[in-house]
Amino acid sequence: MRDAYHEELDGLSDKLVEMTRLVRSAMARSSTALLDADLRLAEEVISADKHVNKLEAEIEATVFDLMARQQPVASDLRTLITALRMSGDLERMGDLAVHIAKTARRRHPESAIPPELQATVLEMGQIAERMIAKAGSVIASQDVAMGLELDTDDDQMDRLHRKLFDSLLSPRWTHGVEPAVDISLAGRYFERFADHAVHVAEDVVYLVTGQRPEEIADLVN
Amino acid sequence: MRDAYHEELDGLSDKLVEMTRLVRSAMARSSTALLDADLRLAEEVISADKHVNKLEAEIEATVFDLMARQQPVASDLRTLITALRMSGDLERMGDLAVHIAKTARRRHPESAIPPELQATVLEMGQIAERMIAKAGSVIASQDVAMGLELDTDDDQMDRLHRKLFDSLLSPRWTHGVEPAVDISLAGRYFERFADHAVHVAEDVVYLVTGQRPEEIADLVN
Repeated sequence: MRDAYHEELDGLSDKLVEMTRLVRSAMARSSTALLDADLRLAEEVISADKHVNKLEAEIEATVFDLMARQQPVASDLRTLITALRMSGDLERMGDLAVHIAKTARRRHPESAIPPELQATVLEMGQIAERMIAKAGSVIASQDVAMGLELDTDDDQMDRLHRKLFDSLLSPRWTHGVEPAVDISLAGRYFERFADHAVHVAEDVVYLVTGQRPEEIADLVN
Repeated sequence: MRDAYHEELDGLSDKLVEMTRLVRSAMARSSTALLDADLRLAEEVISADKHVNKLEAEIEATVFDLMARQQPVASDLRTLITALRMSGDLERMGDLAVHIAKTARRRHPESAIPPELQATVLEMGQIAERMIAKAGSVIASQDVAMGLELDTDDDQMDRLHRKLFDSLLSPRWTHGVEPAVDISLAGRYFERFADHAVHVAEDVVYLVTGQRPEEIADLVN
């Protein structure tokens, strides 16, 4: 049987998973809003971000409360500090989805993404969504192998991000400055989103194994 | 007389101040490198970032060590967690200075900033440098009034950031897509740098007063 303290720790993990669920939904909607110039979806993402922020504040309050009352040591202490850090990453990912939604809203009723870049941006959105879904599973299951997969997803994201830039800067680019500016910023939002997902997964891997993913890679290779 | 534990807490604060000093220097150099297309300065920023990262790692190790050995409560606990968070913000500010330096390096021997935007970008760099210098003073002195000033600096940064975008998107923009993309990303780096400086100052204000800056503003106004 678990005592009240460990139930509170579990509750923290549930809240983190709930944050990943909200952020995954925000990323799915903001990507679609960006591709389809869907104003309603964009507005939904913007107004739903307060729920993500609220969860972050709740997690922070619980962590401080547990630290003050329970004086946790060693692994419990590490769990609490990591929860704080992960909730910070997830909150920021929510903000990045909002930035993407605002780009969609600003360009509405046009799509911010010209036809020849739709496939690339679609894929960036899908990878971002997959990464936050995996981060949620990794938090829930403490699955180290899945945690390590996020590095590969991140490499894919970086490749697409470079491809996006190559298109903007190619002599064949005919859409002028404003779409190029929007797309370069949106590309950066996707890429940062992926970086934060990697941080979340790294934190779980570190909690479970006591080692950073790069150290594990050194051992395996 | 201070005991060993409180000397270690002071040492943590010294390391945070040292981080702000390194980040201030990186911001000054990367802004100048961007404006003057100075490759040597840009390379200096890029290679010096490891010192910022090393300090962050040292602060993290000290915080975990103190938490495990001393089981701090209440205000000491809050100080330790805040140190962790501030070091994370400062590390990220170092990265943003590196991104600006890399923009300068990529466009060398040309300047990434056309003549009509030099004054705006110069001012953004100066505000950024001022904000990190103030953040350092706020950590060292726990000066709440100065901590609250950073909000005003941040508003100025936001105004300049909008002005930069207005120029890129104006029909009078004649420099084409590539400079527009570089400048929009660089503008974003300056703006994020300022946001992180505000977070650092807010954390100190909260440590000293137990209230977030917006609550203090509500009381004063």
